[in-house]
Amino acid sequence: MTTSLEQPTPAVLDDPETAVLEVARRAREASRALATATRATKDAALRALADALVASTDRLLAANAQDVERGRTGGMSPGLLDRLALTPQRIAGIADALRELAALPDPVGEVVRGSTLPNGLRLQQLRVPMGVVGMIYEARPNVTVDAAGLALKSGNAVILRGGSAAASSNEVVVEVLSGALVAQGLPGDLVQSVDAWGRPGAVALMHARGLVDVLVPRGGADLIATVVREATVPVIETGVGNCHLFVDASADQADALAILLNSKTQRVGVCNAVETLLVHADAADAFLPSALAALGAAGVTVHGDARTLALAPQGVATVAATDADWATEYLSLDLAVRVVDGLDAAVEHVRAWSTGHTEAIVTQDLRAAERFVAEVDSAAVIVNASTRFTDGGQFGLGAEIGISTQKLHARGPMGLAELTTTKWVVHGDGHVRP
Amino acid sequence: MTTSLEQPTPAVLDDPETAVLEVARRAREASRALATATRATKDAALRALADALVASTDRLLAANAQDVERGRTGGMSPGLLDRLALTPQRIAGIADALRELAALPDPVGEVVRGSTLPNGLRLQQLRVPMGVVGMIYEARPNVTVDAAGLALKSGNAVILRGGSAAASSNEVVVEVLSGALVAQGLPGDLVQSVDAWGRPGAVALMHARGLVDVLVPRGGADLIATVVREATVPVIETGVGNCHLFVDASADQADALAILLNSKTQRVGVCNAVETLLVHADAADAFLPSALAALGAAGVTVHGDARTLALAPQGVATVAATDADWATEYLSLDLAVRVVDGLDAAVEHVRAWSTGHTEAIVTQDLRAAERFVAEVDSAAVIVNASTRFTDGGQFGLGAEIGISTQKLHARGPMGLAELTTTKWVVHGDGHVRP
Repeated sequence: MTTSLEQPTPAVLDDPETAVLEVARRAREASRALATATRATKDAALRALADALVASTDRLLAANAQDVERGRTGGMSPGLLDRLALTPQRIAGIADALRELAALPDPVGEVVRGSTLPNGLRLQQLRVPMGVVGMIYEARPNVTVDAAGLALKSGNAVILRGGSAAASSNEVVVEVLSGALVAQGLPGDLVQSVDAWGRPGAVALMHARGLVDVLVPRGGADLIATVVREATVPVIETGVGNCHLFVDASADQADALAILLNSKTQRVGVCNAVETLLVHADAADAFLPSALAALGAAGVTVHGDARTLALAPQGVATVAATDADWATEYLSLDLAVRVVDGLDAAVEHVRAWSTGHTEAIVTQDLRAAERFVAEVDSAAVIVNASTRFTDGGQFGLGAEIGISTQKLHARGPMGLAELTTTKWVVHGDGHVRP
Repeated sequence: MTTSLEQPTPAVLDDPETAVLEVARRAREASRALATATRATKDAALRALADALVASTDRLLAANAQDVERGRTGGMSPGLLDRLALTPQRIAGIADALRELAALPDPVGEVVRGSTLPNGLRLQQLRVPMGVVGMIYEARPNVTVDAAGLALKSGNAVILRGGSAAASSNEVVVEVLSGALVAQGLPGDLVQSVDAWGRPGAVALMHARGLVDVLVPRGGADLIATVVREATVPVIETGVGNCHLFVDASADQADALAILLNSKTQRVGVCNAVETLLVHADAADAFLPSALAALGAAGVTVHGDARTLALAPQGVATVAATDADWATEYLSLDLAVRVVDGLDAAVEHVRAWSTGHTEAIVTQDLRAAERFVAEVDSAAVIVNASTRFTDGGQFGLGAEIGISTQKLHARGPMGLAELTTTKWVVHGDGHVRP
């Protein structure tokens, strides 16, 4: 085995577990150089990566065309094909995202807490890189670049396992980024992929405890469930969003309608789109007929309970809702709708069915707003605004690596700080414990 | 199944998995009442728990005597028997620890970050309870009380799985605490044990993802490795400490000797005791003979490399060190000692063998101190002080639930704040995403 910058070709290492552990060891070694790198070094590297991607536009397009062709013949949906496809404009956009990362503050070195203890010991809790971050994700080559950029800025090496649908694109992306790092005097092993070892390689990555510090799965519910079940490396669960909007009796109805349409239709395939509307029984007669009509006009199919369906105007596509609807993250122009007897029933519904991502209330009643905020146990709780705001960029965190729906380490949008850990540094003068 | 305060006796629910999931469901339900409780309510409850324990001294001593007797006939070592045994003084001390918890600030409700976004949305990141915390630990009934108190103060329900060695004591402790909570108008299910369901119950607890938010194993390396491998609930790995002390060429030799003896012998069975001494080759001739003599006089057996053994005075117990010594957390009056060629070699040794708990350097060289702090990747890095300071109480965090040696969520001593998560709260005025 080698630890030099000259990597063996994947074929040399046949056993996926051995090969992936070697990748992880090289990543850990490479991360040491980056952990103490200055912000100037990291930012220069990010700008060099951006330039290298743009300079490699032709190669990237050629590789991407293979992925798109394979997807088309394999029957991939037009929506997914669109997300997979690169264009010169999209490559320029991906490169710009790296330049924007360079402009963000460096989380590493931040003093999180500090004090001088009664005995004179000087105590500091400093933000430091994790070390090695693993990403397991699906499709979309821009995620490959985002993940590499976020890891680099936060001082971490990254090991990528992308979806097979984007395998050709990702291979070239990793090659370009790795080469650009070496040209900047940084280890190429800071950005590596384990795609060459297929599913067994992904499993080996999930078991590389001690070499990989955190694993971030990003994709559908099945992918995330598999990683959570299989991994011994600590995992941050991201993204599954069965989000709710509750229209209270006191809601401003114009606000409620605008927030509902924005939450459902501004973009449908995303984790912070609303999937279930809950309406206070006292507001149902006034609100639902026009709201359902507006949803219908926007092409939304309403999966309603009996009280909802009784208020649906003609011409709106409706389906009788079952428990399966309350549990579903549609990611499509479908919406579950239920009339509830009040705030308590709304909170109970959310507690029973939510994935803990984002829930919103529209209300003019201060006590209702405060109770909803206190009693709903989700990563983001929103009063009188669209669920679509739960997003690293919208929250002002800059780029984001995902939205955590678990409670450990990070909850909600994860930016650069969430890719770091802390270290306690203690300075004494011969201090011993009495 | 029942969710009332009247619990079914364990025998009613024969299947451990069903039984433990029901315990977890009751814990989650109980945690809702506590999540919005005021600090005054929680502190009054903590003081009531303390009083109840003292009032139950006779019952606790009787139950504990059974555990001690079982331990004695089972061949438990005198050291472990001593840690297991309760006395009226120890019970008073355990109760006092609860009263000290009541005096600590409440972490819940702290605004961690907050801002008004350019579009007028008001954003707050608030500290909130995790919900349900699981503890899997060995022996020592005081850990049962500590864990319950820390969970209560941080707004969480706790599910306990103690070692079978303390089963009788723990059963009474949980009964007393649960009863005292009910007397305070809080749910008794805030403190529950799954000991009645043995090992299958522990496994069910590790798999209760979605009901249990975090699992903290506390005990030996085997226990922790089992939990990490088996659990699908997020785990915080604690406590295994193969700690190093590096005496640099420029060290003040009197400081170095005092720090060495304190780190090794002030208390030997703890995770922050030093297990390996590394000595700069330039300091070895001057430092090691007297240091080894002092260690020998303190009853320490030295496991040395060849260069160390050549400097050992007569009468010091020595063993030739192998790689197994570099890897061992002795937790006894044994110390591995190695002469290294300089700072680089010391850092390499630490990187190869450390468990990432605590490493210390003794030096008068500023650059050496700074490099050691920057390059050693451990939860705590200490300059010119004893490794024994890595401790929640010593760091001023108050009580601690364990010392995390992983990088996710918490690293180093874990106090009340580390038993919480955060929630993003967004207030708008009809805001939609453009």
